[in-house]
Amino acid sequence: MNPSLRIVVVAPDLDVANPEDEQAIRQAERSRNLRIGLLENGFNLVATLPADVFLTERIAQLQPDLIIVDAESDARDSLEHVVMATREERRPIVMFTNDDDTGHVKDAVAAGVSAYIVAGLSPERIRPILDVALARFQHEQALLQTLASTQSERDELSAELKDRKVIDRAKGLLMQRQGLSEEDAFKKMRKTAMDKGLKLADVAQRMLDVADLLA
Amino acid sequence: MNPSLRIVVVAPDLDVANPEDEQAIRQAERSRNLRIGLLENGFNLVATLPADVFLTERIAQLQPDLIIVDAESDARDSLEHVVMATREERRPIVMFTNDDDTGHVKDAVAAGVSAYIVAGLSPERIRPILDVALARFQHEQALLQTLASTQSERDELSAELKDRKVIDRAKGLLMQRQGLSEEDAFKKMRKTAMDKGLKLADVAQRMLDVADLLA
Repeated sequence: MNPSLRIVVVAPDLDVANPEDEQAIRQAERSRNLRIGLLENGFNLVATLPADVFLTERIAQLQPDLIIVDAESDARDSLEHVVMATREERRPIVMFTNDDDTGHVKDAVAAGVSAYIVAGLSPERIRPILDVALARFQHEQALLQTLASTQSERDELSAELKDRKVIDRAKGLLMQRQGLSEEDAFKKMRKTAMDKGLKLADVAQRMLDVADLLA
Repeated sequence: MNPSLRIVVVAPDLDVANPEDEQAIRQAERSRNLRIGLLENGFNLVATLPADVFLTERIAQLQPDLIIVDAESDARDSLEHVVMATREERRPIVMFTNDDDTGHVKDAVAAGVSAYIVAGLSPERIRPILDVALARFQHEQALLQTLASTQSERDELSAELKDRKVIDRAKGLLMQRQGLSEEDAFKKMRKTAMDKGLKLADVAQRMLDVADLLA
């Protein structure tokens, strides 16, 4: 993996407001160790951001290759912010958390998290985790792209078939009403389409819509 | 997660043939710890199998919910066997290995591995890892199913459109050659299809194929 990967960490502030808040102290400690581990492993940690309303804008500015969500009690909220912030342009998201609730894991994976790392983390494990996360992300992106192009092919075919059916029905109606050949009926419809600046299928649909009124 | 999940571990034999082979000893030790960790965490370890030619058959018999590939130097071979053995019916595969080669990670993810765990593993980390792997597997299965159904919709529409075009062209040919109305041409083609036990589109295609010969 390219060690100059641009990484953004989304984590709460390291300042602990209340010196008796043990959970906040533990979270700050873990968060500090994660950042040290990233730097020691030669990653390009471009920013550490809080999960707030400015996140979308700052991610758009920084264009990181990978986003690490480092969260504990506020894991779901933080993830939601990051998912929102990467909705337009998907990016690999790695989640470090102590939250091992199975339901949350499922939600996170469905939301597009490439790796969900529960519990302890030693610095030498960071690189392989990010490797796997990137590979997963690329694999899923490829799958999603295949799906998107297949869906658009399907939608185009479906529209073409629908147009063809409407045009055929309208043409049949015209042949029957005016005693025209297929070719003449088609030419007549095409001329109307050109004169009115409409698509042939739109002319056909309008004919069918008001056929009863003009009988 | 359901702790009675049926798990199969694919790993080399714990017997170390050569007492001076340090790598084999380390692998056997790690492999033993993994199995102890699974049992201590309440998982239903139904079998430990070598990655050999009988693997496909044994997995089909055992129907595990999840397969753990525990491999070191032979990681690629073992994975290949497991991927072959789950080709007909996909199952979540978790890979534990010391192989941190980025290329291998990519191959493994592309081959359908739900989690690729490089390096150290403490027993308390097993459950969250399997949770994440299952969530990933289910997420990807859902995506693959959506893709498969979209592809079959696209293929059906494509075939329908193609049939329709062929039928229209053949019908036009018949109308022109025999001076028939559209309706009569259609009826004539349909009768031929019924008499010969062919699909209408097949009759149309045969007409177009030999139109020049019968001119």
